[in-house]
Amino acid sequence: MRVLILGGDGYLGWPTAMDFAAKGHDVLTMDNYLRRSIALETGSEALTPNPNLTARADIFKSLTGKSVGVLIGDCADYRTLSKAVADFKPDTVIHYAEQPSAPYSMMSFDTAHLTLNNNLNATFNIIFAVLEHAPECHIIKLGTMGEYGTPNIDIEEGWIEIEHKGRKDKFLYPRQAGSLYHTTKVLDTDLLWFYVRTYGLRVTDLMQGPVYGLSTAEADMDERLIPNFHYDDIFGTVVNRFLTQAVAGIPLTVYGKGGQTRGYLNLTDTLKCVNLAMVHPPDHGKLRILNQFTQVFSVNELAEKVKRVGNHMGLDVKIKPIDNPRKEMEEHRYEAHSTGLMELGLKPHLMTDEVVSGMLERILKYKDLIDPKKVMPRVRWKK
Amino acid sequence: MRVLILGGDGYLGWPTAMDFAAKGHDVLTMDNYLRRSIALETGSEALTPNPNLTARADIFKSLTGKSVGVLIGDCADYRTLSKAVADFKPDTVIHYAEQPSAPYSMMSFDTAHLTLNNNLNATFNIIFAVLEHAPECHIIKLGTMGEYGTPNIDIEEGWIEIEHKGRKDKFLYPRQAGSLYHTTKVLDTDLLWFYVRTYGLRVTDLMQGPVYGLSTAEADMDERLIPNFHYDDIFGTVVNRFLTQAVAGIPLTVYGKGGQTRGYLNLTDTLKCVNLAMVHPPDHGKLRILNQFTQVFSVNELAEKVKRVGNHMGLDVKIKPIDNPRKEMEEHRYEAHSTGLMELGLKPHLMTDEVVSGMLERILKYKDLIDPKKVMPRVRWKK
Repeated sequence: MRVLILGGDGYLGWPTAMDFAAKGHDVLTMDNYLRRSIALETGSEALTPNPNLTARADIFKSLTGKSVGVLIGDCADYRTLSKAVADFKPDTVIHYAEQPSAPYSMMSFDTAHLTLNNNLNATFNIIFAVLEHAPECHIIKLGTMGEYGTPNIDIEEGWIEIEHKGRKDKFLYPRQAGSLYHTTKVLDTDLLWFYVRTYGLRVTDLMQGPVYGLSTAEADMDERLIPNFHYDDIFGTVVNRFLTQAVAGIPLTVYGKGGQTRGYLNLTDTLKCVNLAMVHPPDHGKLRILNQFTQVFSVNELAEKVKRVGNHMGLDVKIKPIDNPRKEMEEHRYEAHSTGLMELGLKPHLMTDEVVSGMLERILKYKDLIDPKKVMPRVRWKK
Repeated sequence: MRVLILGGDGYLGWPTAMDFAAKGHDVLTMDNYLRRSIALETGSEALTPNPNLTARADIFKSLTGKSVGVLIGDCADYRTLSKAVADFKPDTVIHYAEQPSAPYSMMSFDTAHLTLNNNLNATFNIIFAVLEHAPECHIIKLGTMGEYGTPNIDIEEGWIEIEHKGRKDKFLYPRQAGSLYHTTKVLDTDLLWFYVRTYGLRVTDLMQGPVYGLSTAEADMDERLIPNFHYDDIFGTVVNRFLTQAVAGIPLTVYGKGGQTRGYLNLTDTLKCVNLAMVHPPDHGKLRILNQFTQVFSVNELAEKVKRVGNHMGLDVKIKPIDNPRKEMEEHRYEAHSTGLMELGLKPHLMTDEVVSGMLERILKYKDLIDPKKVMPRVRWKK
């Protein structure tokens, strides 16, 4: 298969590119290094080595003999993206090319403006580039479980049948997200669904939970291939942040009451899910939505787990709740369903104690590089 | 009250500006003449005289002694808009500043790109300009009944309580629009609702049906004050197009089976509704959504009504169904609720035979200026 991976330099994009190239697919990555620029601007650089995309592709080739194509360019620029699609003629486009930080999207007018325009225009351009140059192509879009928010009813898989005054119809499941970043993903879904039903595109929208981990079969070959591992308040997801705090002897910063509950998954499962979506494409005119997580935890449960495993390894791990910088429910019901990916064959790689201790051991190698200033929240949701 | 009317040159913006100035409010209009540019580009100029906004404000002042302020500038440019809000310090902002044509939004990549970016960024900029410079200001946003599409359940007023597996929660009513233009209004609603609940803005979102008519108390003083009356396929709403076809002896072009059913309202009722929303603002943190229409008609019913009244006046009116250029249901249930504006005091100006004959007589004065080429659809929804 010819696979175009947009956002191929990212925490998910790069390991996907290696995994798919290792499986024998013809892979082209595209990225404009936006995340690297923002990391530099906000002092949120990754913990692990991060050669640029071209250098990583060279290292990967020297180790495996497999090629990953690299194109440095902006997906929010139609000329650049449409030329890539026209030249490469992908069978599948995987769309990771979005500004991915919720706190960054809430910092200022400028960061919100960038997030809105970058994310919406990347999605919009992909729709038109595929329509124009590769109409058979399957678009796999990374959405987020955060689109749904924390409703008082069960979270279904993308769609819901509503019975109202004795009549029924099926709709997109109602979405109500907790940051501007997450809201741009809601807008992406609305936009994709409009063009899918109007022009017959084939799209999979993966509602992914927060991802954790830094190990994949290919990343384990050479530390320079480890996906950009962030533990800061801008790009660090909660599990990666807790693991790094545990290693550095910084108390785990639980936001507020810590009852915030979400569905999580291991980085290696992201690769499996995207692969399953790719090899089982939906029909034309279908927006297939899959909820992509394997286990549900509250923030307190995650903190306790990291503390217990860390202490068992001899680390001095403490938990310290802090004022919640976000506006979100800290205690709530969370019942989310996820069967589609299991039906396609996903066998989850769960967060066992061994998985947690393995991640802690890996991060211990970089202990001296951890900057304690990076882990405290700098962005508040209040105006 | 200090009222900033964005899109003040438009079919609705200009009569609103006159009406509010006549009522003694301090009115500033802002417009970048985007609709005029598109009308020129697509050969869709208005039928009636259309002096520019500054000239109209001068005419209005000479007739009434009342001032309408004019600022020519782009609401999608934050520097321009935020300066206007900072300088004028409005109590109310009325947001009509969007590319309003569904067919134009479906013409090409470029027209879709312009519609998406203009409409979203205008809304986004208004949110931030109000937060920064006038946090008490009430934002009145013109949405569209078209956001809801044509679902198989009753259309409620903006929100719906969903009962699902024995539990309940309240959500935005599901939205599923029929063009990219209408979809940008869905995205606007999502964006407004995020910032309302996060930062405590006060917003009224008016889900308006198609508007008809060319008469208001102020427009009737001088033909140069008539709102831009369009009968073309780009900007002409269906009633205005049928009226003009009836006058010109062109068969009324019903799209497809003609069972498409929507809620309509008279131009004068738009002014009353916006005024009622303004004088009864919602609390901070509330997104008040009101369905703004007064009568429900199918396209066939509208055509029959115009035909009957026109023939009675001695016009030779025929109806000729044509292939539907749009992708939409041509026969469907439509049960939409609208009580909020009635509760605020709206007394509708209904589409009686006298109202229809009055509009026909008015348009007859411009019969020689009607260009039959302009009424046929040039844009198809198919790719």
